[in-house]
Amino acid sequence: MTSLSLVTAGAPAVDWDAAAGQVAEALRADAAARDHAGLAPRRELELLRASGLLALLNPPAHGGGGGSFGDAFRAVRRIARVDTSVAQLLSYHYLHLINALWRAGAGQGEQLSRASVSGRWFWGGASNPRDPESQLTADGPDFRLNGRKTFASNASLADRITLRAQIGGGFAVLTVPGDRAGVTHGNDWDAFGQRLTESGTIAFDNVRIGRGEILGEAEPGSAAPLSPRVSLVVPLHQLLIVNFYVGTAEGALAEANAYLRSTARPWQASGVSEARQDPYVLEHYGELDVQARAAAALADVAGAALEGAIARGHDLTVPERHAAAAAIYAAKVQSSRAALDITSRIFELMGARATATSYGFDRFWRNIRTHTLHDPVFYKAREVGNYALNGTITATPLYS
Amino acid sequence: MTSLSLVTAGAPAVDWDAAAGQVAEALRADAAARDHAGLAPRRELELLRASGLLALLNPPAHGGGGGSFGDAFRAVRRIARVDTSVAQLLSYHYLHLINALWRAGAGQGEQLSRASVSGRWFWGGASNPRDPESQLTADGPDFRLNGRKTFASNASLADRITLRAQIGGGFAVLTVPGDRAGVTHGNDWDAFGQRLTESGTIAFDNVRIGRGEILGEAEPGSAAPLSPRVSLVVPLHQLLIVNFYVGTAEGALAEANAYLRSTARPWQASGVSEARQDPYVLEHYGELDVQARAAAALADVAGAALEGAIARGHDLTVPERHAAAAAIYAAKVQSSRAALDITSRIFELMGARATATSYGFDRFWRNIRTHTLHDPVFYKAREVGNYALNGTITATPLYS
Amino acid sequence: MTSLSLVTAGAPAVDWDAAAGQVAEALRADAAARDHAGLAPRRELELLRASGLLALLNPPAHGGGGGSFGDAFRAVRRIARVDTSVAQLLSYHYLHLINALWRAGAGQGEQLSRASVSGRWFWGGASNPRDPESQLTADGPDFRLNGRKTFASNASLADRITLRAQIGGGFAVLTVPGDRAGVTHGNDWDAFGQRLTESGTIAFDNVRIGRGEILGEAEPGSAAPLSPRVSLVVPLHQLLIVNFYVGTAEGALAEANAYLRSTARPWQASGVSEARQDPYVLEHYGELDVQARAAAALADVAGAALEGAIARGHDLTVPERHAAAAAIYAAKVQSSRAALDITSRIFELMGARATATSYGFDRFWRNIRTHTLHDPVFYKAREVGNYALNGTITATPLYS
Amino acid sequence: MTSLSLVTAGAPAVDWDAAAGQVAEALRADAAARDHAGLAPRRELELLRASGLLALLNPPAHGGGGGSFGDAFRAVRRIARVDTSVAQLLSYHYLHLINALWRAGAGQGEQLSRASVSGRWFWGGASNPRDPESQLTADGPDFRLNGRKTFASNASLADRITLRAQIGGGFAVLTVPGDRAGVTHGNDWDAFGQRLTESGTIAFDNVRIGRGEILGEAEPGSAAPLSPRVSLVVPLHQLLIVNFYVGTAEGALAEANAYLRSTARPWQASGVSEARQDPYVLEHYGELDVQARAAAALADVAGAALEGAIARGHDLTVPERHAAAAAIYAAKVQSSRAALDITSRIFELMGARATATSYGFDRFWRNIRTHTLHDPVFYKAREVGNYALNGTITATPLYS
Repeated sequence: MTSLSLVTAGAPAVDWDAAAGQVAEALRADAAARDHAGLAPRRELELLRASGLLALLNPPAHGGGGGSFGDAFRAVRRIARVDTSVAQLLSYHYLHLINALWRAGAGQGEQLSRASVSGRWFWGGASNPRDPESQLTADGPDFRLNGRKTFASNASLADRITLRAQIGGGFAVLTVPGDRAGVTHGNDWDAFGQRLTESGTIAFDNVRIGRGEILGEAEPGSAAPLSPRVSLVVPLHQLLIVNFYVGTAEGALAEANAYLRSTARPWQASGVSEARQDPYVLEHYGELDVQARAAAALADVAGAALEGAIARGHDLTVPERHAAAAAIYAAKVQSSRAALDITSRIFELMGARATATSYGFDRFWRNIRTHTLHDPVFYKAREVGNYALNGTITATPLYS
Repeated sequence: MTSLSLVTAGAPAVDWDAAAGQVAEALRADAAARDHAGLAPRRELELLRASGLLALLNPPAHGGGGGSFGDAFRAVRRIARVDTSVAQLLSYHYLHLINALWRAGAGQGEQLSRASVSGRWFWGGASNPRDPESQLTADGPDFRLNGRKTFASNASLADRITLRAQIGGGFAVLTVPGDRAGVTHGNDWDAFGQRLTESGTIAFDNVRIGRGEILGEAEPGSAAPLSPRVSLVVPLHQLLIVNFYVGTAEGALAEANAYLRSTARPWQASGVSEARQDPYVLEHYGELDVQARAAAALADVAGAALEGAIARGHDLTVPERHAAAAAIYAAKVQSSRAALDITSRIFELMGARATATSYGFDRFWRNIRTHTLHDPVFYKAREVGNYALNGTITATPLYS
Repeated sequence: MTSLSLVTAGAPAVDWDAAAGQVAEALRADAAARDHAGLAPRRELELLRASGLLALLNPPAHGGGGGSFGDAFRAVRRIARVDTSVAQLLSYHYLHLINALWRAGAGQGEQLSRASVSGRWFWGGASNPRDPESQLTADGPDFRLNGRKTFASNASLADRITLRAQIGGGFAVLTVPGDRAGVTHGNDWDAFGQRLTESGTIAFDNVRIGRGEILGEAEPGSAAPLSPRVSLVVPLHQLLIVNFYVGTAEGALAEANAYLRSTARPWQASGVSEARQDPYVLEHYGELDVQARAAAALADVAGAALEGAIARGHDLTVPERHAAAAAIYAAKVQSSRAALDITSRIFELMGARATATSYGFDRFWRNIRTHTLHDPVFYKAREVGNYALNGTITATPLYS
Repeated sequence: MTSLSLVTAGAPAVDWDAAAGQVAEALRADAAARDHAGLAPRRELELLRASGLLALLNPPAHGGGGGSFGDAFRAVRRIARVDTSVAQLLSYHYLHLINALWRAGAGQGEQLSRASVSGRWFWGGASNPRDPESQLTADGPDFRLNGRKTFASNASLADRITLRAQIGGGFAVLTVPGDRAGVTHGNDWDAFGQRLTESGTIAFDNVRIGRGEILGEAEPGSAAPLSPRVSLVVPLHQLLIVNFYVGTAEGALAEANAYLRSTARPWQASGVSEARQDPYVLEHYGELDVQARAAAALADVAGAALEGAIARGHDLTVPERHAAAAAIYAAKVQSSRAALDITSRIFELMGARATATSYGFDRFWRNIRTHTLHDPVFYKAREVGNYALNGTITATPLYS
């Protein structure tokens, strides 16, 4: 992993593809070794900071990069070709930043966005809906936060954590600095994949929360109407995920391609002198490539749909939201399947020697197998069918 | 099947989607009955003529519609949702027209194009490379054509037939009116699918061919360099096919959707009151919908690639041609698989009563099963792999 | 279709495989033509009668063949290789005969069995649980039957129909001659597959039913305990089905094999001189063959499980019943998938000319697609999972 | 891992299933931890020794267990449910022992067999045909062996190594003690799966080989006719492999089953209170279970075919050998696919928390992914097709 000089995000006409490409190249050389070591991704995070990618989505007026969501998706995909963990870090950063900005009151949002850019903040979250809800209680003019969450992606390294907590009969969404007193990080992420993410547990013990850290202008816990845009947070999250699945699939194929061209030996019964001329290698590589192309194409279609929905602003209707969501969940199904299939089947093309731990080629499958369990793919297929047959999407807390 | 008033193709700003939609609607009501009857598609052809779609690709300067290839692909796809046979008729018309125009000498092309528009010509072909080559021999200033071809798509109804024949040590491509003396149509198409196409045999017995009917300015049979554009004829053909596969898949899904919403009964063990709420119906419909979406997305990506390649004109390079071809063959693999899977599996969602012959829902599978045998799908997967691993596409006569 | 001299079923040591083989051979020559004609299978039924197969399961003491259920399964499978309709006729005959015999009181059963053998009865049924229940009402010493059922397999040609009817708060199962006054056959079977079965509607208008035609000794409609063996009727039905799916898959593969060896042409790009040397033909034929072998192996495993469960007689426990049922439903899932895949994909090996209607090769897919909708395959997969995870099988009326 | 008291192999009526079950139970508790540690399987080998399983196939007359090949396959399968590495050790032991005994001259074989039983020998091999051939050269009355082989399964721990070497224009097969001077073990096995096997490199530097260590009575390197039985060594090898694939698939499913019953949480949108009641969990578990059942059934069918072929002894014909081989390769295709699919997809049923390294559930996929690359599965599908279409099996050195 090499280091990067700082990209000044606010500068005009940033070439985000180039910036993401530089990060990817810096990550490539020791990707297998870093996965094997499984250390907290501090150096990787510095690389993201230096690249300017953290501020890609912030408006130029706030000093941000002014990139589009399409730029963000492409950056995530590009990095995932080399390191799915780092792509996840960047994805969840975008998610938790945007979730905060979209929920914030007008002035609050600008202030957070400016601070995020100038402080080069890295964002995390702690809202796993399958755990008991965190509790927010009034404490004089302030509030106190208590709770414990698993799968708190990015949180242990985050400058700012976006989270949801119960207050009274309702919910509030708030942000809190990662090092606020009473916030404890378990540092206990120990899955067989996405090893360089920090997706462990977090505990909030009587953490003080200022009123200004609660997002939005409504009374905390009130059932204030949300902007239509906020209804796109979950689809946005899912599409960021889709993009790192697509990138992972593409990256695994690219490794197989390089190995087949440089190292693989033809099978004895093949009658050809190079593995890449074997009729079955050609056919099955082609089959996998079609899957990867389909995943990328559906991710792009979904990206355009989501950007269109976001552009609708306050005019976004529920049917429009559902149409965009269905496009995204279709891409989720395809990219999950494609990535799982590709990361497992490339070995059939490369042969037995490609299982050497020095290559670390199994990390692609381990990464994608781990993260594709975020929410069950058959429930996403269900929603695609639900949209087609019933014109709607099931409201599952924070998943669709 | 209802009739259409004539669209004047040359008129400005033709809405081709609307024109194709009108044809599709006119074909919808009796699609199953027409498939069952299996008559020669004379009335269907009149519908195409009246719609103006036959001249979609001809330049406005020739009185043509001036539509783009994208318009043509969308028209084919739209019609295939209702009637894959008619979509094939239109596809092969475009293929054989464009093959003639791209190979023609400058004046010859304009003349053919103008005549085609004003005469509302319907084009066919007779070049199946798996049959023995037709033979062209000099006969004074003229030539004589002899041969016999199977799978002569459109030919028996065509005003003009484009074909390839051997002369000397080389080949010539020529056009001949469908009713020229010595041309005999077998009218023997008898497959279980695509029943309304006319894809039977054709025989040429000493058919007189004028010099002006031989396309291009070079000596017939000479190895004159072809324009780069001509190298795109096969990919164009394949992408027209892809689009009627995509439309067929979409049409089958749409029928299943309508049936599920109107007619299907919930399964006893489902615990729901409507079939379209069955968790397995939702999941599997979703899976099929993802496949259809992926096929459409890849067809669109391939369409953009092909239009880009065509736009390169004489500057088109071999690698650029191969890149466009690979995108098209990837779409071919995906659309073949998706259409076969969808047209067979929709019945699992609709249930046993959907097999009644009155619905004719099996025609979708019979149509797609028949035409997807045009060339083996595993050889297309092979070419996708070949492009990815070796940067090339195998030159198979008239198939890739 | 050739005719058969009569096999005397009661004779010792009947070679049932040979008998079924003779029926299959007699059916082979004009299988495609008979499917195309779609006539009521009267001649086919005579063939079954002459073969002795109708009495295969009846005990020798009753003049029957004394064959095992394994013999019956093999006979069904063998015939399905050539004609899935006729295999269905024989399967449903066995089902409705055995259902009657297992439910009958002791003397009643022997009487029915003897009459069935001597009269060479062909059995049918009329119990589709998805239709409203038929009603049985007392009428003096007799009863009256009213109702209407769809998918009344075999009934219109049957000497004896087994059916279920509601009486009071319960149900009775009874048999009635097919020509009893008040029984009307719709003769309206019109699906695109299994065209030679007679699976149309049946109506019962005040049909007189004698007490002796109600099966069993309990009061009609009483909740009398059934013998454990009766709980195996549905699994038996499903395994008969499995066996004709397996036979259909094997038959389709055999046709493809013969065509590949005799008629198919090698693909141009294959570089081989015979289609059956094409690397992709070999691979994909092999894949299909593996599926067929797996389906046959699971059908055999399930057959042994069912025969074991039947042999347990009154000692059969619920867990034993469920274990046998799970083995059968696993075979149902595999054979459904295999048969659908094989009957569709064989064309990819044979090529475009194999779609000629003269071959009629599409009948394999049409047959299997039609009958595999009898009950949804995903619900059978569900039961396999249910047994593995929860040790039970969902009681769905007449389906599991 | 607990220890076992010694089973005296030669004792009458050994219950091999029980013996294998005891080994499996002893391996179960720390299977994940042992995989993680990745130490040489010395303790595991002692467990096999103590179980008596190493002598299962040796005749009672030699002090051996007198078990059948079916017993051996079941033992391998049973152990693979818990530890695929140890199942591989046992499989390759049987392979290399039997290869030696079948090739040995009469007295030589008995001597080797007796010595193997009494010395509780563990057998390995060093014949990877994709490496350059080892060379055997005469050296007075003795011979010298030189060469280097990769994937020398079991060799580094083996008491006796069976290997093939070139001599003159032909080959000899010989056995050599694992600790003979000049034999060097690389101890460099470092794949991401089958971590507890010792499948690294081996080098032979001028290793002295006595005439009696060369198997068979013919002149070393002569083209002496082999016994028909020897033609079954490769199919036997493949079927041993099949059985540990089947066991791995079954073991992974069993782990998922236990996890689903004890630990997994229902998905929020499922509407059920237990994960094992989720309709999609039931369906997909069922699908995987069907695959595992099919793999086991085909392995059993193939086992019976192989035992039948072995029983034919010197009368075994080439077509009989091919029929048995085709049954085995069909089982290989099915078990490879089933095991890969099951070991990857179980996570979709268990959910994200099942990726914790403490469970080590990914080892099933890593193990099966690694060993299924032994030879390409599409070449096995090809041979199944080859047998069906051409009645033959391609002779690929040591692979079919």
